[in-house]
Amino acid sequence: MVAGGVGGARFLRGLTAAVPADEVVAIVNVGDDLTLHGLRICPDLDSITYWLGGVVHPEQQWGRADERSTVSEELRRFGTEAWFTLGDRDLATHLHRTSRLATGAPLSVVTDEIRRAFGVEVRLLPATDDPLETRIRTRDGRDLHFQEYWVRERAEPRVAEVVFAGAAAAEPAPGVVEALLDADAVLLAPSNPVVSVGPVLAVPAVAAALRATTAPVIGVSPVIGGRVVRGMADRLLPTVGAEVSAAGVAAHYGTLLDGWVVDTRDADAVASVSATGVRCVACPTLMDDVEVAAALARTCLELAEEVGR
Amino acid sequence: MVAGGVGGARFLRGLTAAVPADEVVAIVNVGDDLTLHGLRICPDLDSITYWLGGVVHPEQQWGRADERSTVSEELRRFGTEAWFTLGDRDLATHLHRTSRLATGAPLSVVTDEIRRAFGVEVRLLPATDDPLETRIRTRDGRDLHFQEYWVRERAEPRVAEVVFAGAAAAEPAPGVVEALLDADAVLLAPSNPVVSVGPVLAVPAVAAALRATTAPVIGVSPVIGGRVVRGMADRLLPTVGAEVSAAGVAAHYGTLLDGWVVDTRDADAVASVSATGVRCVACPTLMDDVEVAAALARTCLELAEEVGR
Repeated sequence: MVAGGVGGARFLRGLTAAVPADEVVAIVNVGDDLTLHGLRICPDLDSITYWLGGVVHPEQQWGRADERSTVSEELRRFGTEAWFTLGDRDLATHLHRTSRLATGAPLSVVTDEIRRAFGVEVRLLPATDDPLETRIRTRDGRDLHFQEYWVRERAEPRVAEVVFAGAAAAEPAPGVVEALLDADAVLLAPSNPVVSVGPVLAVPAVAAALRATTAPVIGVSPVIGGRVVRGMADRLLPTVGAEVSAAGVAAHYGTLLDGWVVDTRDADAVASVSATGVRCVACPTLMDDVEVAAALARTCLELAEEVGR
Repeated sequence: MVAGGVGGARFLRGLTAAVPADEVVAIVNVGDDLTLHGLRICPDLDSITYWLGGVVHPEQQWGRADERSTVSEELRRFGTEAWFTLGDRDLATHLHRTSRLATGAPLSVVTDEIRRAFGVEVRLLPATDDPLETRIRTRDGRDLHFQEYWVRERAEPRVAEVVFAGAAAAEPAPGVVEALLDADAVLLAPSNPVVSVGPVLAVPAVAAALRATTAPVIGVSPVIGGRVVRGMADRLLPTVGAEVSAAGVAAHYGTLLDGWVVDTRDADAVASVSATGVRCVACPTLMDDVEVAAALARTCLELAEEVGR
């Protein structure tokens, strides 16, 4: 499973309701990762860990439940950047990660320790242990870290280009290529195709493994009823020349896909996607409910089996 | 003013009630400083900052008021050392300090930023910006960081020797020597003579400046009524061959002192200390009340003036 943040987490929760969690490997975006107050923060890995560990903030859908931000409030006293609020419980994860990384442990090792500490059975692999940073080049000529664009500037600047700095030189984290080659099915979560799945595919050996694997590659459309459920994919898809539609995202993934699952509201895309040689089905994909997410996962796996035949 | 933790903080609070705070420079022990979870923690600098900033925990007398330990509790999940609990508000100070030190800023610069952020007018100087660590060699052959001895092992192991690792090579922080040479009076707070004042005096150029200064050096006895008010000086004084008494601590400081202030309960020490050539007076020194602390500070300054004549 290739996944980004909340979309990936919700889909994984469904997948683990459909198949044994310890058979699932999630390859997770690290392009959003950032260092603030000296702490290494991995928003997508953390969101997935907290969701699967059952400790996610239920309304926010990211960060920890029963959370406060005492430390962040105190940090304001020192006049440091205050645009990225860290919850107190969440901060413990970043502190632990940062001190482990400082000892020379790779992110993949630390990620495995953290997911186990939260009782997560799904194996979580960062796409790479190497530096890979999603940069947003704005129309007004600025070069922002993804989080500066998304959190600090609320995705308001018009985007000229999305750049995955470091991706070309990045090696997949240990286990990533093996997981893709050995998989029964590779699922692309309904995460943001540009900035959640994009950075993972930007690692050359990951893209190569996705093309080399004999496992069917099945994607789920993040566009529902012609709209993006959450996030800013609608603002970013046009920057990579993709249409904001269920069919448009399938076209963006192109020949990588063997199968494509769209929402029932986008059932009219089934014919056009199928015409491109990608097996396509429609089912409910709005994963507010774990049962819907589990049914969606089962649909993906059935489609994988069908394609694999 | 040369000071350690709580004793130094309480004395400084009195001193700033007696003289303008911006005329006071405190040279503070750094031998207790430690790195935990990757965070640089300076217990004595922080205690003094919190006291003078009016945000100290009123019962504990160290750490922050209105404090919780959410982050520390969460850190237990990762199986890391749990013996040193960090409060959430306190942690913000450590985070800020650590990230500033990581940019290459010296501790003295960061300390100045932090005390200003808390509205502290007293200039706080770490004794040194260089590595200096108080190590406790135990009778059972172990070599512990001071905090491991004091906090983790509750000062239970019998102490063979106290070592100030790094002190011989440490340079005073910028401003320390100048403050001592230019002072009207140098006061030694009623802090632990061995592990609070000791590490400061172990920096060769600090000891030299204390001997070179024309300012009278006045100390306050941390022993009251033959007992140590708080801390573990009673267990450490014997390791340096000093007697646990008001006169014993004066003898430990020896020729460094021009004047010595003992508690009224130890008034019998006045004669014996005076006989060694150190001007000695007795007054109330138990600083539970800021008025007592201010009166004690005034007594010290009067004694300095008298000695200086």
